[in-house]
Amino acid sequence: MMWNYSQPVDIRFGNGRIKELGMIAKELGKENGIIVCGHHFKDSALVKTMIEQSNGLINHVYGDVMPNPSVKNVMECSDVIKQYNCDFVIALGGGSSMDCAKAAATICLTEDDITTYHGTGLPLPKEHLPLIAVPTTAGTGSEVTCVSVLTNYETGYKGPINSDNFYPAIALIDPELTITMSPRVTACVGIDTLAHALEGYWSKGHQPICDALAIHAAQLVFNYLYTAYKDPENIEAREKMCEASLIAGLSFTLPKTAASHACSFPLTNLYDIPHGEACGITLDYFARMNEEAENGRLTDFARKVGFHSVDEMADRIYQLKKDMNLTVDLKKYQLTEDQIHQLVKLSRHPNLYNNPVAVTDEMLYVMYQSLAGNDTKEKALIK
Amino acid sequence: MMWNYSQPVDIRFGNGRIKELGMIAKELGKENGIIVCGHHFKDSALVKTMIEQSNGLINHVYGDVMPNPSVKNVMECSDVIKQYNCDFVIALGGGSSMDCAKAAATICLTEDDITTYHGTGLPLPKEHLPLIAVPTTAGTGSEVTCVSVLTNYETGYKGPINSDNFYPAIALIDPELTITMSPRVTACVGIDTLAHALEGYWSKGHQPICDALAIHAAQLVFNYLYTAYKDPENIEAREKMCEASLIAGLSFTLPKTAASHACSFPLTNLYDIPHGEACGITLDYFARMNEEAENGRLTDFARKVGFHSVDEMADRIYQLKKDMNLTVDLKKYQLTEDQIHQLVKLSRHPNLYNNPVAVTDEMLYVMYQSLAGNDTKEKALIK
Ligand SMILES: NC(=O)c1ccc[n+]([C@@H]2O[C@H](COP(=O)([O-])OP(=O)(O)OC[C@H]3O[C@@H](n4cnc5c(N)ncnc54)[C@H](O)[C@@H]3O)[C@@H](O)[C@H]2O)c1
Ligand SMILES: NC(=O)c1ccc[n+]([C@@H]2O[C@H](COP(=O)([O-])OP(=O)(O)OC[C@H]3O[C@@H](n4cnc5c(N)ncnc54)[C@H](O)[C@@H]3O)[C@@H](O)[C@H]2O)c1
Ligand SMILES: [Zn+2]
Ligand SMILES: [Zn+2]
Repeated sequence: MMWNYSQPVDIRFGNGRIKELGMIAKELGKENGIIVCGHHFKDSALVKTMIEQSNGLINHVYGDVMPNPSVKNVMECSDVIKQYNCDFVIALGGGSSMDCAKAAATICLTEDDITTYHGTGLPLPKEHLPLIAVPTTAGTGSEVTCVSVLTNYETGYKGPINSDNFYPAIALIDPELTITMSPRVTACVGIDTLAHALEGYWSKGHQPICDALAIHAAQLVFNYLYTAYKDPENIEAREKMCEASLIAGLSFTLPKTAASHACSFPLTNLYDIPHGEACGITLDYFARMNEEAENGRLTDFARKVGFHSVDEMADRIYQLKKDMNLTVDLKKYQLTEDQIHQLVKLSRHPNLYNNPVAVTDEMLYVMYQSLAGNDTKEKALIK
Repeated sequence: MMWNYSQPVDIRFGNGRIKELGMIAKELGKENGIIVCGHHFKDSALVKTMIEQSNGLINHVYGDVMPNPSVKNVMECSDVIKQYNCDFVIALGGGSSMDCAKAAATICLTEDDITTYHGTGLPLPKEHLPLIAVPTTAGTGSEVTCVSVLTNYETGYKGPINSDNFYPAIALIDPELTITMSPRVTACVGIDTLAHALEGYWSKGHQPICDALAIHAAQLVFNYLYTAYKDPENIEAREKMCEASLIAGLSFTLPKTAASHACSFPLTNLYDIPHGEACGITLDYFARMNEEAENGRLTDFARKVGFHSVDEMADRIYQLKKDMNLTVDLKKYQLTEDQIHQLVKLSRHPNLYNNPVAVTDEMLYVMYQSLAGNDTKEKALIK
């Protein structure tokens, strides 16, 4: 087996470590930082404190990142960076803020529009401002990945850009920042983490280091996600979920995600289902589908994570979604035949080809039909 | 829990990949490389081919690295680098060649002697030549660690220098290069890998990413080391042991090793026991000693690796050593009381303080006595 591994992000993890931000900024040797965040944090005490404690190193805020950030967000953010001549970027928030900041930190050094690179496969120019990623959700792992997922709301295209530029210089993970997440957000982002671990493991691009990390991360999700959902102030559960999110990020950034992520993009775009919830909808389906791929190596995963079989693990994923009140099917959308065909078509995303079992249109059709409630023999059919 | 993680080495793994060396050298943008190796490879066909296939980028060889490399090796190698104005270094061999090359790649840019930094704690100057590490044993993981273990034969001191300089730029692991290892070397270096995984896990400096990697590596050792020993040409076993060695290296380089490594240094210096074998002598002892430390987290390790208990794992380590004809005690040295006191004294090495249970002189004394065969109630006493 042939594989490569590199992991250029400097990771700092621990409760209360947000107060090290000023020191870290100083370490970078930069002088004029900008915080990139969404409305939730824009005028928050946290951002004020971060600026105050930076000894003058952080002076600006771009606070308009929307969930599922738009290419427009990136260009606005880039303009602010240019306007104030910022020389480093702090991303504060979930995947949305981090992904917007990543793209802006490169595009601000060009005269280009991000759409030149989004969905086109054109490689980004190599220069970029250094980024400090400070996650406030425990889900995407974007703080350690080389991915930025953007949406072009004009064309309806949502998809990732991959670039080594997007590795943050430093990931500063302070689990205390995630305590304010609502149970619903906690559930959505937590399932995203599980999808990263599973897909990083079963992706055709799997490799040993990422395998070991995926197992570690999935185990944490199964052990702590429900507690974090039920008991938001449980700091141990928050800490473990931050650990899971980060480590699942490491586990998928090189192998890349697979079919569940491919299917999530149209589900998010067309039906406004949050990213993690959208990934989760098909996760147990693809787990069952991938059970026997590559000599059944997913069984080894399931056992190491504490189950007897892939089936038992898939059942548990389904139950976990139910228990957290996440969508487990698409029944409420009363999908028409045309809508199902549209989902099939838009699921044919590059990530789909990372799935260890080749996913045909027919398989997708059967899956979406059963999720839509148009068939009762769900599991039987997609196996 | 608070922890940091970084892993700056670019890893390339796979059978036959040694032929990529020339391309990798080119990637580095350097022009005048030197191969650092021991007598086993000095005049080998492998080295000739490496030079030939480098398109003129590799032109020199320092081929006198001895096992447990000396500070003198480092200075000689550094002199050759200076003499030919080399601008990058290729380490070819086991831990001995890699460690010598690491130190030489820094010291050659100074007017200093390596003894200024060895055992003194003085930090090295930051400048160093880039290093491509090509391991030919599957044991030390030195290809991904920030450690160089050197011996000053004048003072009798053997110990590690830690420096970020020592991270190779690139680790090129070609398992086919390890097929020529004798069963005895295979056994010694394989137990070293197990010691790294176990000590990386139970070291006071443990942290989640390294934990996950340690479990993965230990499992591979238990599954494949004996096969690699018995059937040297079994390429699958060789590949898995290279993977284990590399990943165990990642698992200990930040947490650091603990008591078994501390005790190994005097055993190697005074009784000429190879590094891995020396670490192995006390490994099952310390496993039993550490069983209950930190809420018994070693039990979790043992279970994840496939055992019911730490005791069962320790028994298996003992048996593995026996099966591979490694020293399991010190009886043959017929140690005197004075010699035992000397071992106790010299085991008080900085790494000893990373052990999760505080190791007193009395505990060391009892352990060495029982290893020497002066007591039959071994296990009972050290628990
Ligand atoms: N780059 C990657 O590697 C990667 C991986 C997976 C997903 N993604 C992308 O990331 C985005 C999703 O990110 P996300 O799931 O983290 O959600 P998000 O960033 O969109 O945040 C979700 C909601 O939670 C709020 N929020 C965030 N932190 C909070 C806190 N501490 N307290 C209270 N509210 C808080 C936000 O304001 C937002 O309304 C999607 O666009 C997805 O495609 C990226
Ligand atoms: N830097 C680190 O992170 C680290 C970690 C553990 C140990 N070490 C150090 O590394 C040294 C031990 O290294 P090692 O265990 O790899 O042994 P080694 O490098 O001393 O090699 C052992 C013997 O095997 C021979 N050999 C090597 N590769 C061979 C091959 N492919 N075929 C046939 N023979 C081969 C060598 O010539 C030598 O005689 C010790 O000094 C130890 O303290 C360093
Ligand atoms: Zn995701
Ligand atoms: Zn060692």
